[in-house]
Amino acid sequence: MTSTPGLAAYPSEVREEVERVRALVCDLHAELPRWGLVVWTAGNVSQRVRVPGGEDLLVIKPSGVTYDDLTPESMVVCDLEGNLVDGSRAPSSDTAAHAYVYQHMPQVGGVVHTHSTYATAWAARGEEVPCVLTMMADEFGGPIPIGPFALIGDDSIGRGIVETLRDSRSRAVLMRNHGPFTIGRDAKDAVKAAVMVEEVARTVHISRQLGEPLPIAQSDIDSLYARYQNVYGQGDSAPVNP
Amino acid sequence: MTSTPGLAAYPSEVREEVERVRALVCDLHAELPRWGLVVWTAGNVSQRVRVPGGEDLLVIKPSGVTYDDLTPESMVVCDLEGNLVDGSRAPSSDTAAHAYVYQHMPQVGGVVHTHSTYATAWAARGEEVPCVLTMMADEFGGPIPIGPFALIGDDSIGRGIVETLRDSRSRAVLMRNHGPFTIGRDAKDAVKAAVMVEEVARTVHISRQLGEPLPIAQSDIDSLYARYQNVYGQGDSAPVNP
Amino acid sequence: MTSTPGLAAYPSEVREEVERVRALVCDLHAELPRWGLVVWTAGNVSQRVRVPGGEDLLVIKPSGVTYDDLTPESMVVCDLEGNLVDGSRAPSSDTAAHAYVYQHMPQVGGVVHTHSTYATAWAARGEEVPCVLTMMADEFGGPIPIGPFALIGDDSIGRGIVETLRDSRSRAVLMRNHGPFTIGRDAKDAVKAAVMVEEVARTVHISRQLGEPLPIAQSDIDSLYARYQNVYGQGDSAPVNP
Amino acid sequence: MTSTPGLAAYPSEVREEVERVRALVCDLHAELPRWGLVVWTAGNVSQRVRVPGGEDLLVIKPSGVTYDDLTPESMVVCDLEGNLVDGSRAPSSDTAAHAYVYQHMPQVGGVVHTHSTYATAWAARGEEVPCVLTMMADEFGGPIPIGPFALIGDDSIGRGIVETLRDSRSRAVLMRNHGPFTIGRDAKDAVKAAVMVEEVARTVHISRQLGEPLPIAQSDIDSLYARYQNVYGQGDSAPVNP
Repeated sequence: MTSTPGLAAYPSEVREEVERVRALVCDLHAELPRWGLVVWTAGNVSQRVRVPGGEDLLVIKPSGVTYDDLTPESMVVCDLEGNLVDGSRAPSSDTAAHAYVYQHMPQVGGVVHTHSTYATAWAARGEEVPCVLTMMADEFGGPIPIGPFALIGDDSIGRGIVETLRDSRSRAVLMRNHGPFTIGRDAKDAVKAAVMVEEVARTVHISRQLGEPLPIAQSDIDSLYARYQNVYGQGDSAPVNP
Repeated sequence: MTSTPGLAAYPSEVREEVERVRALVCDLHAELPRWGLVVWTAGNVSQRVRVPGGEDLLVIKPSGVTYDDLTPESMVVCDLEGNLVDGSRAPSSDTAAHAYVYQHMPQVGGVVHTHSTYATAWAARGEEVPCVLTMMADEFGGPIPIGPFALIGDDSIGRGIVETLRDSRSRAVLMRNHGPFTIGRDAKDAVKAAVMVEEVARTVHISRQLGEPLPIAQSDIDSLYARYQNVYGQGDSAPVNP
Repeated sequence: MTSTPGLAAYPSEVREEVERVRALVCDLHAELPRWGLVVWTAGNVSQRVRVPGGEDLLVIKPSGVTYDDLTPESMVVCDLEGNLVDGSRAPSSDTAAHAYVYQHMPQVGGVVHTHSTYATAWAARGEEVPCVLTMMADEFGGPIPIGPFALIGDDSIGRGIVETLRDSRSRAVLMRNHGPFTIGRDAKDAVKAAVMVEEVARTVHISRQLGEPLPIAQSDIDSLYARYQNVYGQGDSAPVNP
Repeated sequence: MTSTPGLAAYPSEVREEVERVRALVCDLHAELPRWGLVVWTAGNVSQRVRVPGGEDLLVIKPSGVTYDDLTPESMVVCDLEGNLVDGSRAPSSDTAAHAYVYQHMPQVGGVVHTHSTYATAWAARGEEVPCVLTMMADEFGGPIPIGPFALIGDDSIGRGIVETLRDSRSRAVLMRNHGPFTIGRDAKDAVKAAVMVEEVARTVHISRQLGEPLPIAQSDIDSLYARYQNVYGQGDSAPVNP
């Protein structure tokens, strides 16, 4: 039913990978309400599907569907211009932004967008989150940068994300008056970045409510970031922004 | 047991619709604690039942019953003067306000009232929530307005809601010192507005704690609102306030 | 096993009532973490057991037991001097305060104590919560008063509660640097007051973070309180503080 | 599978105790997300295993594993230099800090580390939490102290914890720009301290947002602490910091 002619044109390995990614992306959406990052139908997760010798695809949430109603089959497949390739529903209205990121950042395998409260609060002031926590240095290697104000409807959101993150260690950008977009090696890594950017936005906000947080020396930030990207975890966390 | 003579006077299609709406309104109440909008027995959801060639009815929560104890059968049916038509319990003490809205805003099919924390905090200061988030422009098309102080017991709450929302794009009004009322095409749409008004009230509050949020140009608000009301979702979201 | 000689001296109606109240008080403790009022083992609920022609008893939580481990049998029965009458565990270290309230406020049937965050934050400043919300006027009939600083170990906490609440409409007192105690017709009513006092402490706190909430006229507070105590709910909510 | 030669060198009583502690430490990790202290894979719990006539061991969480995937078998056993003794995964990157504490504070049986929001917010400002709540006096006997800024990778975090807590009544230290470490008689006691330090950091933060909390006299703090450590609970709570 969801196998339209669009996807039939792809080799069977790609079609199988699409089905695997549909299940994965569907499951990862559950992490967004679990960590308090979204309400109602807001927020979306996507993952790139690499097509050997062709143009890559992406799998993303359908538009305006509540989290309880998401199923692997309802996930939508698009090409990297954001055109529908497979799926019975309209793709998320943020698909063009996700697609632009995949087109222009080949190392990125996953993208997440939320309106998580504290990250969005910094975005509404257009103020970057300063790096005053060791866990920020670990995860983001410095401050969380602000992207431009951009209207939905063309590639201006995607361009804003790419231009802000291209030369940053951060896997998260706070789009002005809008909210955070995060990138990762894959969708799970981008979801982790979405969870962590809200956590650090919240903690630094609360710290600043009663005074100025103490700065961390740039050399300490550098060594924390280097160590975390290379040593932490079970050896599977090479950085998306090397 | 809940089929009193009051409802027996209505045609069977209306009686069947009442039973369907009872189940729907009962289920939607679960969304209020789920999204942290109510404690204990506070808050209520209602939906209009259209009566062809007659006066419409409304289905609403009984008064003072905890959310765990709500059942479809316990939902109360009233006419648009707020008189009991069917039900073994007293209707919510906010029924008169809901009924007044249905009487004076024929396009409204659902009404929700909560005391959700951040929306009520703005209401206690009598201060509208400024439109500084793209998701506010999408959902509400501008600021969330303040309604007058009004005592319960006559139609002054209902009048305050109608007079404030009649000429507004917003589906939410913050009644002064009291809390938010939201309207929608149906009860689910009004519940969504209740969830979203708390979300934007919270995010803008937090943003303003550390400085002034950046304004969004009115022309950008207009184009975001127009797009969202017409394009977003799966084609089922015509605005209640066109 | 929990039927010690202490309880055997009471008539069977009282012993049956004690067992009923044990189950009720045990269940009501689950409301405290549910509404975010307590962490770990903090907080306690008690209910009076009336003894016709004798001195009343009270049923209360054992000391230092986590909420997951509470059972009806583990609930402790004491007399109104706080002496153990029945139970295999030590009673809550706040038992003396509960007992003092029951002794000196005969209309009180339930007492709850928590360290809920926002109520305790006002208590730490020794500042009453002003009545700027209609739901506060409904539930508490005015501001939430502050009780004195009192050390645990004698009847000074109990005296502080009684002296503060005796001439107040409020069913809640914020003991200075300590936290809220609430009273009610029965334990459930006192639990409701504990939930509502945190809700209003939180909402007024948040409102005041960005400016001064608008006052409600005393005459409006009076009429809201009178209506709510007499009309609201299903006719079972006569006020404990008439 | 997890029984490597490392552990085989220990007597059977120790090996049995290790298995018991693995299950316990695994279960206690569930308390961290339950009380909102951690997101994703952050945070770790350890417990000492006493080895009669030899050097003690510790059991700790593996590195970078999400809470849903933790099992007793995945818990890692190390010696008190932080070397792996048993386990199929790399130990938490905070193992050196835990090990240092066990080596230098023989009375400590459990250590917990989180980045809980409010405690970390105080840590980012390098500001101790003043003792203005009776529950702080009970649990911590005074303010929550600040430890030095320390990089991960050698024993500087461990030294900072030990030097700060050695002469303090507090079972919690806020490591500057980093987050809280707590100690206890055993892992459960340290988890309780982690829950309570966030609770008091949050409540005092919120209190101070609208003014200065009232101080508690030192003599009152002393008597509250003495009573709580000796009397509270069911007689099993001798203090780790006497």
